[in-house]
Order: sequence, then structure tokens, then C-alpha cells
Amino acid sequence: MKKPFLLILAILIISQGFSQKVTKEDSTMIKNIYNASLLDGASYDWLDDLSNDIGSRLSGSLGAELAVTYTKEQLEEVGLDKVWLQSVMVPKWTRGIAEYSYIETSPGVTSTTDICALGGSVPTPYGGLKAEVVEVLSFEELAVLGREEIEGKIVFFNRPMQADLIQTMGAYGGAVGQRYSGAKEAAKYGAVGVIIRSMNLRQDDYPHTGTMSYGDTPEHLRIPACAISTNGANYLSATLKLQPNLLFYYTMNCKTHADVQSYNVIGEITGSEYPDKYIVVGGHLDSWDLGDGSHDDGAGCVQSMEVLRILKKLDYKPKHTIRVVLFMNEENGLRGGKKYAAEAKRKNEQHIFALESDAGGFSPRGFSFDVEDAVFKQVKSWEPLFEPYLANWFTRGGSGADIGPLKNEGMVKALAGLKPDSQRYFDYHHAANDTFDAINKRELELGAAAMTSLVYLFDKYIY
Amino acid sequence: MKKPFLLILAILIISQGFSQKVTKEDSTMIKNIYNASLLDGASYDWLDDLSNDIGSRLSGSLGAELAVTYTKEQLEEVGLDKVWLQSVMVPKWTRGIAEYSYIETSPGVTSTTDICALGGSVPTPYGGLKAEVVEVLSFEELAVLGREEIEGKIVFFNRPMQADLIQTMGAYGGAVGQRYSGAKEAAKYGAVGVIIRSMNLRQDDYPHTGTMSYGDTPEHLRIPACAISTNGANYLSATLKLQPNLLFYYTMNCKTHADVQSYNVIGEITGSEYPDKYIVVGGHLDSWDLGDGSHDDGAGCVQSMEVLRILKKLDYKPKHTIRVVLFMNEENGLRGGKKYAAEAKRKNEQHIFALESDAGGFSPRGFSFDVEDAVFKQVKSWEPLFEPYLANWFTRGGSGADIGPLKNEGMVKALAGLKPDSQRYFDYHHAANDTFDAINKRELELGAAAMTSLVYLFDKYIY
Repeated sequence: MKKPFLLILAILIISQGFSQKVTKEDSTMIKNIYNASLLDGASYDWLDDLSNDIGSRLSGSLGAELAVTYTKEQLEEVGLDKVWLQSVMVPKWTRGIAEYSYIETSPGVTSTTDICALGGSVPTPYGGLKAEVVEVLSFEELAVLGREEIEGKIVFFNRPMQADLIQTMGAYGGAVGQRYSGAKEAAKYGAVGVIIRSMNLRQDDYPHTGTMSYGDTPEHLRIPACAISTNGANYLSATLKLQPNLLFYYTMNCKTHADVQSYNVIGEITGSEYPDKYIVVGGHLDSWDLGDGSHDDGAGCVQSMEVLRILKKLDYKPKHTIRVVLFMNEENGLRGGKKYAAEAKRKNEQHIFALESDAGGFSPRGFSFDVEDAVFKQVKSWEPLFEPYLANWFTRGGSGADIGPLKNEGMVKALAGLKPDSQRYFDYHHAANDTFDAINKRELELGAAAMTSLVYLFDKYIY
Repeated sequence: MKKPFLLILAILIISQGFSQKVTKEDSTMIKNIYNASLLDGASYDWLDDLSNDIGSRLSGSLGAELAVTYTKEQLEEVGLDKVWLQSVMVPKWTRGIAEYSYIETSPGVTSTTDICALGGSVPTPYGGLKAEVVEVLSFEELAVLGREEIEGKIVFFNRPMQADLIQTMGAYGGAVGQRYSGAKEAAKYGAVGVIIRSMNLRQDDYPHTGTMSYGDTPEHLRIPACAISTNGANYLSATLKLQPNLLFYYTMNCKTHADVQSYNVIGEITGSEYPDKYIVVGGHLDSWDLGDGSHDDGAGCVQSMEVLRILKKLDYKPKHTIRVVLFMNEENGLRGGKKYAAEAKRKNEQHIFALESDAGGFSPRGFSFDVEDAVFKQVKSWEPLFEPYLANWFTRGGSGADIGPLKNEGMVKALAGLKPDSQRYFDYHHAANDTFDAINKRELELGAAAMTSLVYLFDKYIY
């Protein structure tokens, strides 16, 4: 009698082993989660309110504050154990009167182009700025041209996103440096302004804004930075080839103000076994001001809210405390993410897992994990659970900007980011067409369900 | 000396074994294919012409004939070894003057609804048709109500597509029976007309057409069949609950004409080793008449053309003859597919592989294979080659309607269908919003590249 018992025990130990095996109960739970999201979800209606009733939510704007109030109320209605606002001071930058620009090929012969100020830019001088244009593809090219060729001119950074990269985030990473640091670099050589080709893989008329930095450039040397649509960039480039001494005119009325009071919105379901260990799921509540921020990152916010709503709805009692955090100011400061991490550190809130959705509300393909080997091995064993939902692409990589500070503070063990299909993301990213009509209800809901399923598994199996 | 040699030979036999191993050369070739599609592709421009210059292409229409001429010219320009038209007689059905309908809750109190005639329907009587409405969800429910409750009334089939199914094709399969056979079934009980809830998972105002059949219903008992938008269906259903004796009015001016002459468009690159063995890749050139058929199936056509263009461009010399076939009349007759198969049989053209793209131009997830076990085992060994492109979901299942007859005639060994992400497909399918602006260039191009890669592997490894 003893030997079979030991054998069974050994098999049990091996099979549970280092990573616990998922059960039939898990696949049933995940099916229930998907049904709750697809048949009776709240995410789409929440996003409708956020996008169509409130609209854009740039840090420090009225929209941002209305979004704080609205999402707090909605989380309260879900019946979480605790909902509160976490105070955070945020930068305030305003676009002012709409930008205007044209290309002048000879006196009085002009064609207008589609531009927008980059977030954080200084304005043009009153009445606008007109100068010759030098087109470059890189900072290296800029350095070769030097002060002699650059001084007094506008530098036009026209490096396109690489279309042959399958994952568009990689293409963004390879091109966004010119947006972020173009003005700083060009100012070194005496440029009077910069025009940046929009971070967009599509050819269209939308200029795409986004954050930029002057670094340590002295204030009086800071030059106005705008983005031009991809169509506009192609047109400007082609016209420059015909007439290198054309003039570009633009006027921008943007302004940086003093920091203002804002908030992260936080809600939680208290853990039944480990109330002082946390799982956090979130997105960022702020958005750029041109569209209504439906994909970036209204989608991530409502999906994160939906995670807790579904768990409540299914009457799941988490072992750990599960928090939703809607971070303020990801776009131009990351103050919300930093504040949340600093507070977690101050209170010694140990997080076992942090999950962010900030790559658009598109059809989910899987998750990117920033975890140690042992955890990744366990996570990989969950892939089959996500196969019926076609969200089983589990890879290693980055997670999300807002949860990054939690890692930097050493307050989280495992991080992940939702990986939606990335092909259309940069069609909308930071542009006026990032609006609710670009959201597909099912795609949004599938993302929320995948996130909820992952949070459930971390709560159940990871300690 | 002998033994090590035999050992090496044995290893070689085992490793090549039953399925040949892919090589580094294959991954390089596939990278080149993707680059050709994403950096210098023709598919998007072709689709622009097909959708925006030509427009809808219902069998027997001017659009269909213009599309035949246009695609033949384009294939000739690609420089294929042979391009020709294959004659096929097709049904001709016309919508006529736009449909009109309303709900009448009391004399003179009406609200209009969005309907369209189903393809193949008879018209309403001159001046339209007005009658009470009976809502049902299934043929079973219809049978229970029987002639007593149905006679003289309009039957409203309102079974929605199932939102909890992850693959939307399954949800379509579960609901489309009411569209296809609703009129035939309702006529048995003396109904005077049918209204079908649109095959659409979204709530919107677009009615979705599609083919229907009267089966063996005698001509004088055939009743007019229309689709109503999902919003319209919900409104009608809700109003019926308040007022069961409301009247529904509709007028349709559609007509079935005599069959007319049309064509499949065919082009080929002659095989270098087995010119009399064929690989066929295709989509259907005809579309419904409401939109411009960009997703269904303009996308599949230009992707199939692109397969041959890329192989030519990369100077690939296929072993087998590779054909593109743009089938006519998939939507309401499948005459093109049947004709192609009959001709293949007549000429004893053995096909080693047939691939169809007819599920929209969305981000490709992989392929569905209709193949024997041995071939599927080999095909599965190719999955890693598609992993960098996130198109590595290789599953067993159906292929495509147009290549089905080739299988029925026993003229093809292996079949497959491209599997794009299916979430948004039924937002556009057979509706007025299936237009070019709903196409993302990269998604279309990624599909063409995945198809080209698969055709390359079949040509190289399958005999």
C-alpha cells in the first residue's frame, strides 16, 4: 500500500512541480469572463461616455478633470471595496488658437499644409515664423551639415517609420527620437524651428502630436516644434527637390503654464488571503488634445475598469488585493505613474503583478511579459487557456509606461502589457482621428476579457 | 568507414524523412516576400482602382465586366507567362430603384427603417406590400406557430449572431440559415413576405444583403425577402412588443434576368519542373452591389494577384505552374468556381494546392487547411517561419467557396484559406460600408505576403 501512495505523491509533486497546473475550473472561469465581457460588458459604453461626452483629456485640461470625476463615479457604482483619488501635480500645456502653415514657393504663391504643435513646444514668435527649410533624415546628417547650413533655417526631420517592421511599435521606436529631441538637436546649430514628419505609417493628412523635450537647452534658444502630416511631409520634400530655397511659414500659439492639481483614480477589491499584496491593472486617463483619445488610452482605462467589474460580477473573491489605477499624465510627464510608485514605496505596498493596456483597443494577440525566468515559465504554461480566444501570443518584452516606475522603485515582482494587433495603431496615435468611431466593440471587449483572465491566473497561481 | 556513412545516411533520411525540413533560405525568401509586399506592393493600389474607379461588381453588372477587363490588363502588365479569360454564364439579378419601408403603428403614423432586398428575391407587388408582422427566432418556432398564425403576415426572422463566439464565421454560420431559407420556410405557412435581421454583430443602420433561395417553392408562392439593419431589427422588435398588430410596409423593385456572359480571369507562371501540375491562388471578383466590395472580396483578388507579382519580382522560378484565378459569381451562384473545376477536370489538370482569400483584408492570423494528415504534419512544421509575422495560426478547417468545386471534382490534393482577424468582418460584409476606406494598407499587404510565402513553400516542398 505504501509504494503506490508514494508514487501518486511523486506524480502529484512532479505535475504540480515548480509551476502549478491549470485546471478545468480555470478554462470554465475564463469562458465565463469572456462571456461577461462580450455579452454584457461595460467597457464600450464607458468609452462612449469618456470619448463622446467628455472628449480629449490632456493633463490639466477640463476634460482630464471631468474624466477623473466620471471614472471615480463609475468605479463606485461597480461596488468596489474602496475607490479614491490620489493627488498628483501635473504639467499644463495648451495649444491655443489652431496652428497655421504654408509653403511659399515664390512671393504670394503658397500652399497650406497640415501641422500641429508638438506637446511642450514653445510658440512661434507673434505673427509666425518664415524661413528656408533643410531636410534631414537623422541627427548624424544634421551634424554633417553643421551650423553653416542650418543657422537661421527650419530643420525638417523626414525619417519615415520603417514599413517592413511587422510590429509597428518597433517602427515607432526607430523614428520617434526626431520628434522627442529634434528641436534640441537642431537648436545646437542655430535652427529657428523644426518640422517633424508625423509618426504615422499611413499616407494621410493628419498631423500627429506627441511629447518633445528641449533637454538643457537655455530658454532663449528654444525653437518651436511642429509635426506635419505624412502627406504634407511628402509634399514638402518633393517641393524642396524642385525648389530648395522655398520658404516655410508657420504660426503656433501654444503655452506652458504652471503645474496644476490632478489625480490618479484608484479602486480596489480587497484580497481575501493577502490583502496587503497587490495586483494592479491600469491605463492612462490623460490623452492628447487633438482627438478624443479613444485608443490612446481611453481603451486601456475602460478595459482596466472592466477587469474589476467582471471579477465582481462573477463573484470572484481574489486572494490578493486587486487594484485598477487610471494614471494621470502619461503623455507629457508620467507624473501619475511616478506618484503611484512613490506612494506604494512609502507604504511598502508589495505588488505581485502589474498589467497595463496602452497600445490601443484592437484585437488582442497576447501579452508581453517583463518577468523573471521562473515566472515566465509558469506564464507560458497558461498559453493553451488563451488559445481558444486567439490571445495566446505570450512573449517577453516591455509592459507599460505607467507601471514602469513601480518596477524602478522595486515594488513589483512581475509586469505585463496587453499586446493588441499593432497594424492600425499609428493611423490614430496622437492624431485628430483617434476617436470613438475607430473603436470596434468586440475588439475592445476581447482585450478586457484577456486582461481579466490573466489577472485571475496571477491571483490564483502566483505568490 | 562504412558504418558512420550509414549512420549519417540514416540521420539524413530521418531528418528529411517524411517531411522535408525548411532551411535558412526559406526564412530569407519569406523576409524578401514580406519586404516586397510592404515596401513596394501593388495590392493596395489595385484595390483602390477596383473599389474607387470601378466600384461594386455584382455578377452580370457593368462593374463586374469592367473588373474583368481591368484585372486582365493588370496581370498582363505583371508579365505572367499566360493571361486569359475563362468564359462562364452567370445569373443576373438587379436591385432596381432603392427599397423603401416603414413601420406603421397607427394610420398615418409611420417611422422608416433601413432595409435592402436579399439577392435573388422577387420584388414586392407593384406599390409595395403592407401586413402585420410575426417575429420568430427559428424555423422551429415558425412551425409551432403554423399556418394559423402566419398566413397573410410578414415573418420577421430576428435571431442575432452569437456574440460569445470568438470566431465570427461560426456566429455567421449559426444565423445565416434564416437569410438563405427564411422565405422558403415562411412561404410554406402562407406568409406574404419576410424580413431578416442583418448578419452583423454590430448595432448600426446598415442592412446587409446576401444570397437567398426559394428552393423548390413554386413561382407563384415566392415571397419578397429583405434584410433589416440591426438597429432597425431591434426597433421593430421593441415596437412589436408594445403593439403586436403594427403594420410593416416595404417596396422592392428587384428582378432576376436571363443569365449573361461573364468570365473568370486567369493568369499563370509556367512551372519549370512540373508545368502540368498546378498551384492555384484566388479570390472572387464579383461582389454585392451595396458597397464597393473592398473586403468581400476585392481584397482577396488583389492579394492573389500580388502573390504572382511578388514571385515574378523576386525572380522565383516555380517548379509547378502557379495560377491566379479571379472567380466570377461566388456571391450568388458559384458559377466561376464550378466552371474552373469542370475545365480542370476536362483537361485533367492536377492541382497540388489551392488557396483562397475570402474573409476580408484584415490582419492575417494564419491559415485554415483542408488537407490529409501527412500534409498537415508537414504544414505544421512551417509554423515557425510565420511566427515573426504573427501569421502562425495553422489550423484545420474549410478553405474557400470558389475552390470547393475543385475538391468535389477530385482535382486538388490540398486546400487552404487565409484566416484574417475576423472581428470586424461582419461590420462590412455585404453592406454599403464595405468600401475602400475600411481597408488598412498594411493589413492587406501582410495577408498577400503570408499567402505568397505559403505558395512558395507548397511549390518547394509538396509534390
